[in-house]
Amino acid sequence: MSDVKIQPRLPKGMRDYLPQDMLKREYVFGVVRDVFHLYGFEPLQTPVMELSEILMGKYGEDAEKLIYHAQHPGGKEELALRYDLTVPLARVVGQYQNDITLPFKRYQLAPVWRAERPQRGRYREFVQCDVDIVGIADMSADAEVIGVVVSVLKKLGFPQFTVKINNRKLLTAIGQYSGVPDAQLGDLYRSVDKFDKIGADGVRKELVERGIGGEAVARMMDLIVAHEPGLGNLDVLDQAMGSIPAAQEGIRELRELAAALGDMYISQEDYDIDFTMVRGLGYYTGPIFETTIEEPNLGSVSGGGRYDDLVGMFRKESLPTTGVSLGIERIIDLMDYLSLYPDTIHGTVVQVMVTLFDTSTRAESSKLAAELRGQGICTELQLEERKLGRQFQAADRRGIPLVAVLGPEEITQGVVKLKRLSDGEESTVPRSEAAAKVRELLK
Amino acid sequence: MSDVKIQPRLPKGMRDYLPQDMLKREYVFGVVRDVFHLYGFEPLQTPVMELSEILMGKYGEDAEKLIYHAQHPGGKEELALRYDLTVPLARVVGQYQNDITLPFKRYQLAPVWRAERPQRGRYREFVQCDVDIVGIADMSADAEVIGVVVSVLKKLGFPQFTVKINNRKLLTAIGQYSGVPDAQLGDLYRSVDKFDKIGADGVRKELVERGIGGEAVARMMDLIVAHEPGLGNLDVLDQAMGSIPAAQEGIRELRELAAALGDMYISQEDYDIDFTMVRGLGYYTGPIFETTIEEPNLGSVSGGGRYDDLVGMFRKESLPTTGVSLGIERIIDLMDYLSLYPDTIHGTVVQVMVTLFDTSTRAESSKLAAELRGQGICTELQLEERKLGRQFQAADRRGIPLVAVLGPEEITQGVVKLKRLSDGEESTVPRSEAAAKVRELLK
Repeated sequence: MSDVKIQPRLPKGMRDYLPQDMLKREYVFGVVRDVFHLYGFEPLQTPVMELSEILMGKYGEDAEKLIYHAQHPGGKEELALRYDLTVPLARVVGQYQNDITLPFKRYQLAPVWRAERPQRGRYREFVQCDVDIVGIADMSADAEVIGVVVSVLKKLGFPQFTVKINNRKLLTAIGQYSGVPDAQLGDLYRSVDKFDKIGADGVRKELVERGIGGEAVARMMDLIVAHEPGLGNLDVLDQAMGSIPAAQEGIRELRELAAALGDMYISQEDYDIDFTMVRGLGYYTGPIFETTIEEPNLGSVSGGGRYDDLVGMFRKESLPTTGVSLGIERIIDLMDYLSLYPDTIHGTVVQVMVTLFDTSTRAESSKLAAELRGQGICTELQLEERKLGRQFQAADRRGIPLVAVLGPEEITQGVVKLKRLSDGEESTVPRSEAAAKVRELLK
Repeated sequence: MSDVKIQPRLPKGMRDYLPQDMLKREYVFGVVRDVFHLYGFEPLQTPVMELSEILMGKYGEDAEKLIYHAQHPGGKEELALRYDLTVPLARVVGQYQNDITLPFKRYQLAPVWRAERPQRGRYREFVQCDVDIVGIADMSADAEVIGVVVSVLKKLGFPQFTVKINNRKLLTAIGQYSGVPDAQLGDLYRSVDKFDKIGADGVRKELVERGIGGEAVARMMDLIVAHEPGLGNLDVLDQAMGSIPAAQEGIRELRELAAALGDMYISQEDYDIDFTMVRGLGYYTGPIFETTIEEPNLGSVSGGGRYDDLVGMFRKESLPTTGVSLGIERIIDLMDYLSLYPDTIHGTVVQVMVTLFDTSTRAESSKLAAELRGQGICTELQLEERKLGRQFQAADRRGIPLVAVLGPEEITQGVVKLKRLSDGEESTVPRSEAAAKVRELLK
């Protein structure tokens, strides 16, 4: 078998996570899950592959070019790997109407696949992490998913972030107010979406190039670039176009949302009403949210919004739904950049390594390891003979904090010598007290 | 968007896990991970898709027909969804020779895909859960992976199980001893593998039909069906064919393995030397293990063994490797059958639901929920107006143990009324003490 040699390599844009990386990722996933549970979101899991017909036609043509298709020899179904977690949620809500009680608050933390051109920080397999509330039209649901984002970022230790909030209804109203025909609203969204990249002048220029009249563009830009503190932007809009029904509704929603955020003790410093924030996906119908971090600015760390129509594709009547997706891969990159990992995340799960003196003492080393494991201590046992110095070196290189030495002398005396590698602190204790001492030295 | 209707359904042989199921699964995954950490195994993650060339040629033709292939529009790589976690591990070991220190003890808990004919209890996407030790030839490594299986099953509460142990070298030796030509050893394995299903007579008949001489079959069956308690089977073999080198080595290995298990306090009642146990996969080279549960017998709940050559397909020189895969899906089925889940796993993550009296008290309900969440209590907030009785019903149906009532009276008095749904126990406490009281009532 070992005669055939194969170059070990990965598909383009995909990654392995070796233990050191995994432990960091799992720390972040753990914090995220804890927050989801605090807010009463329940876990859901859907298969990696969906029938193609479930996915296609939901994301827009450009996105759908990025979907991976799958097949097994002789298989008759057309399958595709999921592109996000939102469409699978909508399918689930349609499929299990008798098993799901509303409101349905679920989270899913799982990989998705998009065959985008690989580039720094962008991968073809990446984890998405979504919370959604199905069945509640009230803005308190939108506030709750924003609350999850705020709590996650605070728990992870991010010193600064801003949740930008807008409303699709307001974008539509601004278009109407400015005289942009409905058919061109998509163009409008796409251009405004580039505000961060190309600035107000860039957007202005692009809108004119797209054939929207100069006067309309001017009227619109005045409103979009409004930047009053707090809810001031809403007052500006209200004054200008409070008589347009879509604007009325959008403004009312955002005021209710802001009030609901206040009732959750979320400070006005943590969010901002920003009419230049659009969000790419086609299915949003109401408030939309996006969270940015100023330093370093790697792009948004969460995005979401209300999409009251999507679930309706999979059941007779739609259900009001709102949700948010954490940009968990970007958050993980930022955790490293900002050194936000606690000291306890140090490259290994192992708390203590039990040394092996020689084969004559193997049984006792093995027993000690079993005893420590029985007491809940994560224990590595040296499995092969090796010089003691090399065993210490290996423990140190792997980041194992403690070494338990068990030579013939210790065995005769019924003791263990424990050594903390960070400062050389040593302690010899009876074997029955080894686990307790390990706990003490780890503090 | 909601005009297009799509029948919500799943691909054949695939499943969704709604929250109640997920919570049970995650409990099992959590126990399993804890045990892996106790033994010093570190997490690894590889992508769902591998290059086809990595997977093909490792599992045998029949298996490879079951592999899902994937592609994106315009993609040039031939991709496939992983079939197990062992070949990806071998690739990783070959690919990151500078980043991995030996011994490399990793676990991976992740889905794999096999397009088998769907049937009761068998799915096309299922989770595998593997621990492997790369770089140790000594039987103490095999003992450690068996130790993991024993600890997992005990921690999960299984009252009975047996780890069956055999050695590929012994199967080979038995073949040689009986006069089976090397080219027919594969046939021999395949027939013996059916021992549990077709019995000794069935195996005998099949071997003769495969063209193995009647005398050879008789000699072999005498050895294979040996059933002495403890290590007695090894003595039987030693006596019959101790002069055959493969037999010598195989017997020595299993005796060392048994000694190493003893050194881990693993009782002889938990394992058994069984020459009828073969394991399907082609890559095993030494000891092999399989765990069965008598009641109910749904098939093996773990399988594994030593495969010293596989890693050599991806690097210049191979490395001795041994490992075990937990049949985690079967274990989950058995947990239900044997009612092994603790009472704390009860269909929801939510510990308390905060009611909503009416819109005038919404702010206070929201604040109470935020306060409880801030104290680490998993809290569901009633988001829409509804009769109080209906709110209690919904909490009860979802399995939420406590309800926190906050009406105008409680708000005026600065108190909360907490009610435990299981026994109707009620308690009114100042709001600042609500979290502590919730903890007390949950005990």
